Amino acid sequence: MAKKYVYFYGGGKKMTDGDRTMREILGGKGANLAEMCNADVPVPPGFTVSTEACAVYEDKGSYPKEMMQQVKVELAKLEKLEGKKLGDAKNPLLLSVRSGAAQSMPGMMDTVLNLGMTDKSVKGFAEATGNPRAAYDCYRRFIDMFGDVVMGPYSTLNHHHFEEALTKIKKKYKAKQDTDLTAEQLAELVDDYKAIYKKHVGKPFPQDPMKQLELSINAVFDSWQTERAVKYRILNKITGLIGTAVNVQTMVFGNMGDDCATGVAFTRDGSTGEAKPMGEYLVNAQGEDVVAGIRTPINLDEIVNEEDQGLVKAGKQLLKIMAKLEKHYKYPQDVEFTIQQGKLYMLQTRNAKRVGLAGVRWAVEMATGVDQMTGEKLPKLLNAKEALMTVQGSDLEQLLFPIFDAKAEAKQTPICSGLPAGPGAAVGAIVLNSDKAEQMKKKNPNQKLILVRHETSPEDVGGMGAAEGILTSTGGMTSHAAVVARGWGKCCICGAGDLKINEKKGTISVGGKTYKEGETISLNGSTGKVYVGEIPSESSPIVAALVEGNKAAKKHWIYKMYEVVSEWSDKFRKINVRTNADSPADSKNARAFGAEGIGLCRTEHMFFEGDRITDVRRFILADTDKERNAAIKKLLPHQRKDFVGIFKAMDGLPVTVRLLDPPLHEFLPHTEADMKKMAKELSVPLSKVQERVAELHEFNPMLGHRGCRLSITYPVLCEMQTRAIIEAAVKVQEKGTKVLPEIMIPLIGTKAELDYLEKIVRRVADEIIKTKKSKVKYMVGTMIEIPRAALTADQVAETAEFFSFGTNDLTQMTFGYSRDDIGSFLPDYLEEKILETDPFQQIDESGVGQLVEMAVQKGRSTRPKLKCGICGEHGGEPNSVKFCVRTGLDYVSCSPYRVPIARLAAAQAALEG
Amino acid sequence: MAKKYVYFYGGGKKMTDGDRTMREILGGKGANLAEMCNADVPVPPGFTVSTEACAVYEDKGSYPKEMMQQVKVELAKLEKLEGKKLGDAKNPLLLSVRSGAAQSMPGMMDTVLNLGMTDKSVKGFAEATGNPRAAYDCYRRFIDMFGDVVMGPYSTLNHHHFEEALTKIKKKYKAKQDTDLTAEQLAELVDDYKAIYKKHVGKPFPQDPMKQLELSINAVFDSWQTERAVKYRILNKITGLIGTAVNVQTMVFGNMGDDCATGVAFTRDGSTGEAKPMGEYLVNAQGEDVVAGIRTPINLDEIVNEEDQGLVKAGKQLLKIMAKLEKHYKYPQDVEFTIQQGKLYMLQTRNAKRVGLAGVRWAVEMATGVDQMTGEKLPKLLNAKEALMTVQGSDLEQLLFPIFDAKAEAKQTPICSGLPAGPGAAVGAIVLNSDKAEQMKKKNPNQKLILVRHETSPEDVGGMGAAEGILTSTGGMTSHAAVVARGWGKCCICGAGDLKINEKKGTISVGGKTYKEGETISLNGSTGKVYVGEIPSESSPIVAALVEGNKAAKKHWIYKMYEVVSEWSDKFRKINVRTNADSPADSKNARAFGAEGIGLCRTEHMFFEGDRITDVRRFILADTDKERNAAIKKLLPHQRKDFVGIFKAMDGLPVTVRLLDPPLHEFLPHTEADMKKMAKELSVPLSKVQERVAELHEFNPMLGHRGCRLSITYPVLCEMQTRAIIEAAVKVQEKGTKVLPEIMIPLIGTKAELDYLEKIVRRVADEIIKTKKSKVKYMVGTMIEIPRAALTADQVAETAEFFSFGTNDLTQMTFGYSRDDIGSFLPDYLEEKILETDPFQQIDESGVGQLVEMAVQKGRSTRPKLKCGICGEHGGEPNSVKFCVRTGLDYVSCSPYRVPIARLAAAQAALEG
Repeated sequence: MAKKYVYFYGGGKKMTDGDRTMREILGGKGANLAEMCNADVPVPPGFTVSTEACAVYEDKGSYPKEMMQQVKVELAKLEKLEGKKLGDAKNPLLLSVRSGAAQSMPGMMDTVLNLGMTDKSVKGFAEATGNPRAAYDCYRRFIDMFGDVVMGPYSTLNHHHFEEALTKIKKKYKAKQDTDLTAEQLAELVDDYKAIYKKHVGKPFPQDPMKQLELSINAVFDSWQTERAVKYRILNKITGLIGTAVNVQTMVFGNMGDDCATGVAFTRDGSTGEAKPMGEYLVNAQGEDVVAGIRTPINLDEIVNEEDQGLVKAGKQLLKIMAKLEKHYKYPQDVEFTIQQGKLYMLQTRNAKRVGLAGVRWAVEMATGVDQMTGEKLPKLLNAKEALMTVQGSDLEQLLFPIFDAKAEAKQTPICSGLPAGPGAAVGAIVLNSDKAEQMKKKNPNQKLILVRHETSPEDVGGMGAAEGILTSTGGMTSHAAVVARGWGKCCICGAGDLKINEKKGTISVGGKTYKEGETISLNGSTGKVYVGEIPSESSPIVAALVEGNKAAKKHWIYKMYEVVSEWSDKFRKINVRTNADSPADSKNARAFGAEGIGLCRTEHMFFEGDRITDVRRFILADTDKERNAAIKKLLPHQRKDFVGIFKAMDGLPVTVRLLDPPLHEFLPHTEADMKKMAKELSVPLSKVQERVAELHEFNPMLGHRGCRLSITYPVLCEMQTRAIIEAAVKVQEKGTKVLPEIMIPLIGTKAELDYLEKIVRRVADEIIKTKKSKVKYMVGTMIEIPRAALTADQVAETAEFFSFGTNDLTQMTFGYSRDDIGSFLPDYLEEKILETDPFQQIDESGVGQLVEMAVQKGRSTRPKLKCGICGEHGGEPNSVKFCVRTGLDYVSCSPYRVPIARLAAAQAALEG
Repeated sequence: MAKKYVYFYGGGKKMTDGDRTMREILGGKGANLAEMCNADVPVPPGFTVSTEACAVYEDKGSYPKEMMQQVKVELAKLEKLEGKKLGDAKNPLLLSVRSGAAQSMPGMMDTVLNLGMTDKSVKGFAEATGNPRAAYDCYRRFIDMFGDVVMGPYSTLNHHHFEEALTKIKKKYKAKQDTDLTAEQLAELVDDYKAIYKKHVGKPFPQDPMKQLELSINAVFDSWQTERAVKYRILNKITGLIGTAVNVQTMVFGNMGDDCATGVAFTRDGSTGEAKPMGEYLVNAQGEDVVAGIRTPINLDEIVNEEDQGLVKAGKQLLKIMAKLEKHYKYPQDVEFTIQQGKLYMLQTRNAKRVGLAGVRWAVEMATGVDQMTGEKLPKLLNAKEALMTVQGSDLEQLLFPIFDAKAEAKQTPICSGLPAGPGAAVGAIVLNSDKAEQMKKKNPNQKLILVRHETSPEDVGGMGAAEGILTSTGGMTSHAAVVARGWGKCCICGAGDLKINEKKGTISVGGKTYKEGETISLNGSTGKVYVGEIPSESSPIVAALVEGNKAAKKHWIYKMYEVVSEWSDKFRKINVRTNADSPADSKNARAFGAEGIGLCRTEHMFFEGDRITDVRRFILADTDKERNAAIKKLLPHQRKDFVGIFKAMDGLPVTVRLLDPPLHEFLPHTEADMKKMAKELSVPLSKVQERVAELHEFNPMLGHRGCRLSITYPVLCEMQTRAIIEAAVKVQEKGTKVLPEIMIPLIGTKAELDYLEKIVRRVADEIIKTKKSKVKYMVGTMIEIPRAALTADQVAETAEFFSFGTNDLTQMTFGYSRDDIGSFLPDYLEEKILETDPFQQIDESGVGQLVEMAVQKGRSTRPKLKCGICGEHGGEPNSVKFCVRTGLDYVSCSPYRVPIARLAAAQAALEG
């Protein structure tokens, strides 16, 4: 039997082939259309060409043989169900052709509407609907879309050419709006359009609807690999998809008169999280008009106040269906609908996108059944476990974002305002062009930018990614800019209609005043207000409560919600979460965020502070052991003091301290001027400084004289650091604090390295403990960050009491990628799908992960209770945390602000598996 | 039962505890002393304190408890056997105390002689021997040695202080030689020595012989870790030893009169390999005098002509025992002997050290029973397999060393001559100080040096290592300089007595002429002749025969011997040996040395030659694909031509070609001047060159944009190189040459990288083959040099048809060591035994080797017939080759001149296992 590539939907459960579980092959849209049909929701019937067909097309460059045959069969079924025929001279069927991958990529791929319009069927349509104006309007729209989308890539044709002809004919007949054109005038326009088509494409506009359909399916498949689609997938870390499905669907018309409308709606507010339907619609319009943000749409609340009672009735039905869908999917939905002459059609439903706040709020409210702001009762849709699984790490992350200082903001007058499309606060320099924004960010990653555009399109995603916030002058809450920004948790204000943008001059003007590119503006994405200059921002209530000790903030509903999620996380997770912290302040903050100890305290940071660098440099320049020892001695009290503070902050919790790691040249100046300064400060000749700098130069510092290699050359370093740690521990413990120091030797590749330094550490530590008659207990362990250490972990564990995976270096060496140089080829690798993700962001499970698993297994074969953790950047990345849980690590360690995210991910991993 | 730490030998087989198999715990010397006792060879009896005791001492800083008790027991046994008592007032026993590790380290550790001499026993000794002069001479020598060796490290005392007293007393009594001093004068000297001892040590000279013994054992143990001993082990790659044994032995005296002698001898000539005993002795002397090279000794041949008939008889017995020992050990022996009043004592036997030529000759002659130079018959001691196992890779390597051009040398008059202690030819600049030689070599590794010294001592080993050749003015064929140089296969001339060295002035003078440090001299280590200036050197007969096409050389006995060894090697080995060659010439040479194909052809070398670099730079500077393609196109004919030559040279054998590997910045100039030149040549602004250089700069180029990463960014590179390879193959095959190209993609870390490039390679290659209707077959494979590739080898092998292990990079990444920067810590690592060997020289089996094993196993699990080879530097290192054989690789690949060594090692590995 031939493989099935085409799936019918419509006509109720009986006729529908698919369901919601089939999103991998039907795409999200196709699977949900089928699901809605199964649930008797009114959906225009149609069929879905599967993603598997797209995969064949991608791979072989042509359709699978059976596909078009199957399309014909399903089309015949559709024609029968609808009682219309494609291209018919009397009652023609019109179709839409839309992309739909397994994961949503809004606006990234192509769509063709009104397919089936020909010189013959346009008349049939006019006749059947009694609306010749609508017929010719559809036809001319179809020629435009087909010409631009389907033939554009193969010719010089594009939308712009049709726009010109439209403007010309409007001028000719003195029509202000498109809607002022009559049927005859539109018929004339159709002739103009066909002529334009022929001129650019070299062939007449195709009058065979099957040809139209085949070419359109083709175009949707092609759009899978356009630059903007590929870029979107990279930016959104969408991987593992085989292609897009194509949804062919009976056209319904929101533009057939004032009893028609089209719109999009959410069952809950994706911005505030409020459990109340929100949406927008346009009367007498096609769906794309809403998404494109060309006309400013009407709030969904208004639909019950419409004059046309058909619209009112359909609107009420919509609200009921939305509630049903939310309950059915157990998650807030994002729907598209069209009302054609008072009849409601649902065109799409999907799990709604939302900002972090809404994501958390939805989860908490769906599980508790209580509105978190008002205390009102809501339907319970999920239990706590299910609810926790819907929260993403990035949701929590967004809750920690700063917001404007309310008082400072109150003193300012906004220069304009728009729709609060993406909450949070953003401050940055105005930039009017996306490419420019990308380039500026590349040159100076610290530069904060606000991208200001009329409206955004998929071509702008790069620039949007580079900006702190986005401001548009047109478009609504569901415009491209709004949807993309919310998906990223980025601050965004849309439809600030007063704003005039002059890209050529590089200025924006509003209220008679003009501002240049580069001037600073501030956006409040939660209110939609735009200010000139920088408004000081304010911490999130969570940060205020936990870090800043603001007691009032603890009563804030957002903070309380955070507490619910934290409680759930801690209840379900099975591993510990520690933090990477180098100072008493960081340690305290991390503890407030739930850290259960320090997994990585980098001592080198302590070497740079204040005067210490001078002694470090004295040490580096020393010619004799005596000089070296003298310099080191001066560092001891400073280091000890740091540890005292950290141990106090971590009372009762373990603290892993890593001995000095970076190569010595990092502590020396590199410019002539700085070297002169250093020579003067240290009273040595400049030549001596220069010589030492030259001597310490390395070709590949990442693979050079650093980590444990330093302490082996200069054991005094290891001695001093051990002394500082243990003396601090003894001192603090005497005063009643419980200390659990874990001394960590970095960059071990062989057991012998560890043995050599472990002996020194124990000699120094035991002597202090004995002399002071202290009861401090300490552990000695190592980082596993060199592949060889992982490979020989059974030997290393003979000495090491714990392993901490330094997955940054381990990734560098396992791949042979320098983190500092990867920029030259990583973009190519992601684009060509050679890498699915940046392995420095998300742990590479099959390579680096294999080494981690091997090391844990081998290490525990020698020392069954070996404590294992991770302290690389991956320790705060949700997918990597899940990997760590599966691998049996005892803890993950990450930066303080990522601790809540790691706790969540750890819980999710436990629930998953 | 207490552990046994002390082993008796002497008194025949019945009383002897050990045998030759116990060298790990008795050391080489101790095991062989026991073995000789078992074989009834006359040996002064004694006992050996085991290396295990040394290990405890090293580890804990003190003897194992039982040890001194056991020493007392064995000492009592010895006293009984000899009928003498230690410290006795009438017939005292005197002892020697010598080190002896499991591997020979000549002169590196401490020795104490005449132990047991006290104020009391000196009188007993005088009485018992009737020789008071000898008694006081022994006593003063003992005080000197004990003071210097045993107490020196803990006081200001050293040999120099005693020398001064000796000179003083000789002056006082107008004695020319030490031997001119009378018993009374020596007794006075003993008093002086004791005073000196007390002054520097702070205590009187110990009169308790047991105390003397304990302190001396202590000193030998301590000498295991002296800087020079550690350095020697590093230089000689001696690893895995736990410590030294201590041999306590009854003293015998070669200095009791003219019927006494002491000497060293070899059963065969260690320099020419001739099967004839050779040796040297001194009449009326102690053994250390021979080794130290202070007096020039007599050739062993002369012993039968001695006046003293006791000496003659003992000499004849010696020759018989030497023949017996050679037969017993099945290998030429190096013996030490002493004749005391006509009675022969063997003090040591061990497998003799020899230069490479002798090593090969011994092996061939022991197995064939034919003298290779003369055709005379010799005893057959070994079969071919056994004989092959005695040849070392370095022996063969030495046979390939150059010798002086005979005609050019004949025209020169030598300025002086000495003993031909280490054969071969050496040319270099005079340097008179070992430290200086080491420093000069470090600064400029290309500088050729000749170290010129009065005599060398263990302190000179560093300088000797740095020099091309060694020239001494005193000392014989068995002096320190000679033994060490021969062990290394280094050119050495000893005892050039006419030479006067003035280290202060930095000059040497001979025959009234003076030469300064830095002037060039030439040494013929095979004849002992020294020349001023550079004499052109000549290839070895093997190189002449194989590389230079010298037909006469094929009849040379050395070449014939090489053929025997090669034949044996090829008969026993089971894996192939290929070569790393980048040019037709190298390919031809390698094939002559037995290479069975090319395992690594590095194409980047072809990018530098002649004008090509200009096109490469044009490619790098190109702004557009068009420019890039144009530049690449120009390189194509050059590359193709190279491959044509290589394929022809390798007719019928496989050739693995690696695609471009180094980062692009390696092809750009780095100085301002060179950049200007390049800008001019390419007619581009200097700023453009500078910008590109800056752009391509990398922090860690080893982990940067190189290898397959380049071809993924610029697929045109891969296309051009594939085209050149396949077009060359097609062309050459058309003319009847059989080509087997294997295209190798470097630096693969993921299967996706390989897939991406494999597709390009196959597309280009198949198109050419199809167009040309050729039958060329090619393979596509990859280097395994990134840890991740080894870890995921099962996936990589889905695409790769072969693996070639690039163990240089694999070692870098597995250890996290930059080969270019390792110098800053490797010496410390070797000294502290953190690494046993440099992992870039000998493969690290437990880490890097583990990855190789894993990759072979995983790769073959996917593709059972996967061809696996190695092409890193390790491919020519004998131990690494053996590892490759054990791991099941199909071939090793190494530089042309190392091919014979790899063949030998492969055969040895097969025989071993």
